Amino acid sequence: MHFADRLDNAIKAKGNPICVGLDPRFDQLPKPLIEAALKQHGRTPDAVAEAFIVFNKAILDAVADLVPVCKPQVAFYEEYGWRGMRAYEETIRYAKGKGLLVISDAKRGDIGPTALAYARAHLSERVDPKDAGFEADALTVNPYMGHDTLEPYLEACASEGKGIFVLVKTSNPGSGDIQDMVTASIDTVYERVAELVRALGAKNMGTCGLSNVGAVVGATYPEQAAHLRRTMPDTIFLIPGYGAQGATAKDAVAGFRADKRGAIVNNSRLIIFAYRQDAYAKYGEKDFAGAARAATLKMAEDLKAALA
Amino acid sequence: MHFADRLDNAIKAKGNPICVGLDPRFDQLPKPLIEAALKQHGRTPDAVAEAFIVFNKAILDAVADLVPVCKPQVAFYEEYGWRGMRAYEETIRYAKGKGLLVISDAKRGDIGPTALAYARAHLSERVDPKDAGFEADALTVNPYMGHDTLEPYLEACASEGKGIFVLVKTSNPGSGDIQDMVTASIDTVYERVAELVRALGAKNMGTCGLSNVGAVVGATYPEQAAHLRRTMPDTIFLIPGYGAQGATAKDAVAGFRADKRGAIVNNSRLIIFAYRQDAYAKYGEKDFAGAARAATLKMAEDLKAALA
Repeated sequence: MHFADRLDNAIKAKGNPICVGLDPRFDQLPKPLIEAALKQHGRTPDAVAEAFIVFNKAILDAVADLVPVCKPQVAFYEEYGWRGMRAYEETIRYAKGKGLLVISDAKRGDIGPTALAYARAHLSERVDPKDAGFEADALTVNPYMGHDTLEPYLEACASEGKGIFVLVKTSNPGSGDIQDMVTASIDTVYERVAELVRALGAKNMGTCGLSNVGAVVGATYPEQAAHLRRTMPDTIFLIPGYGAQGATAKDAVAGFRADKRGAIVNNSRLIIFAYRQDAYAKYGEKDFAGAARAATLKMAEDLKAALA
Repeated sequence: MHFADRLDNAIKAKGNPICVGLDPRFDQLPKPLIEAALKQHGRTPDAVAEAFIVFNKAILDAVADLVPVCKPQVAFYEEYGWRGMRAYEETIRYAKGKGLLVISDAKRGDIGPTALAYARAHLSERVDPKDAGFEADALTVNPYMGHDTLEPYLEACASEGKGIFVLVKTSNPGSGDIQDMVTASIDTVYERVAELVRALGAKNMGTCGLSNVGAVVGATYPEQAAHLRRTMPDTIFLIPGYGAQGATAKDAVAGFRADKRGAIVNNSRLIIFAYRQDAYAKYGEKDFAGAARAATLKMAEDLKAALA
């Protein structure tokens, strides 16, 4: 089945468009979990990898019945070498086992033959299901190097039911430096990227009327998101920036379609580290997963209100 | 010592500006090596990882006295999951042990806190030298997301003697899609990126008059490279596209400074897989390393002639 259809169905089934970002940081994990890992493995990357796996599994257990999709950010695993990448692999495997769709947030971008290797790394089915590597359902990709660096992923989209999310207008403060540049034909760089994404997407449509070629559109720039929605009616938006980066639920839904479909809103820190916030302090660090679940339910409510 | 100084010294010591790209593909490795790995590990990612390590070590043994720097492309390792990343880690460790500088070709780019994790993954010294993770001497990075996604690397440049190479004008056919866009102020996107790189670099200079913030400038666009050299006199260019992508030695040196410094030219496939070319067939697949050495010496000669 097309990625767009799988995601659209999953959002319907769970009743909300939330993507939980799995971005663990060792020093922000609950203390009992840190201590157990250090006791077993000493101060080593193995301790970090083990703690990440335990933490992510508990979070996934707590939110799997609530949300359609999760998004591990590979940088936080890559930081700990191949042992960290082993935790990344195990996190993806566990999330898929829980019935969640997984977006690998790796923002890869490179010349054709190299992009093909990235597509195989993150999107291709493995022969051995016990050894799935980093295989996820979708991958975030960077468009700076042009169309021939995006096309190698489309084969996996078409034949293996996978998707990509191309960076169009990102959520960070410096996103304007390149993306907002006004070109000689009066549109901006990000609008030109949007056009490229739309064209690639038109050849890769799901049956639900949405495309397997999505776009990353930050919640922190709601006016641009609304504008992009008008020019990309069939594109699924992956919307970062809600919560920790300052965007509200109202900002986050600016990029949704009028039928309330076609977008997922990511939240990483304010869900997985909810136990560190005053609002969820009552859960304590031992029940960090319960805090994550409560924060997820609160976010679902906020988005529902903003979409109403 | 600054990265720019270390690289400049290494180029002087070796007498050429060649970067050997370590981009292994399992199906292109010499047959005896494939067979040995399959015999020991079966058809598994472990077999691939083992074969990559054996292959890379032999190539590095054959060229370490000839060239100043090597550049593993992470995608080809990532393709095989955490086991592939273990081979990546071992390749970096071995290359550094041979006295080579290592550029991690990962083209990373993400928001601030995530970029910091990437900087730690690829540029930060580890406490335990036996467990260096992916620590290299420099990292390629993508500028599409703006200045705040480049700045987190600069701390490692300043305090740990590391460098970055920012994608400015890449070597692939589609590099014009975004990079050549003419902006309302008549310059192009890549020129604006060049200006950003130059400004970051001015605050991160080595004592040799070159900056620790480099630029990727493809050999396949020599006119643009010559233009960029005029606007970025102190920036080290990492020049891909020579050989397999069609650029000649003359094209590759278009981005060098008048004093013949400030650039390194990468060659991956035509060195590491030289044994598959007619010109080096006499080495046979058993002496693939000898073929790689001969191809490296030939490239050094060609560049010398083009620079003369």
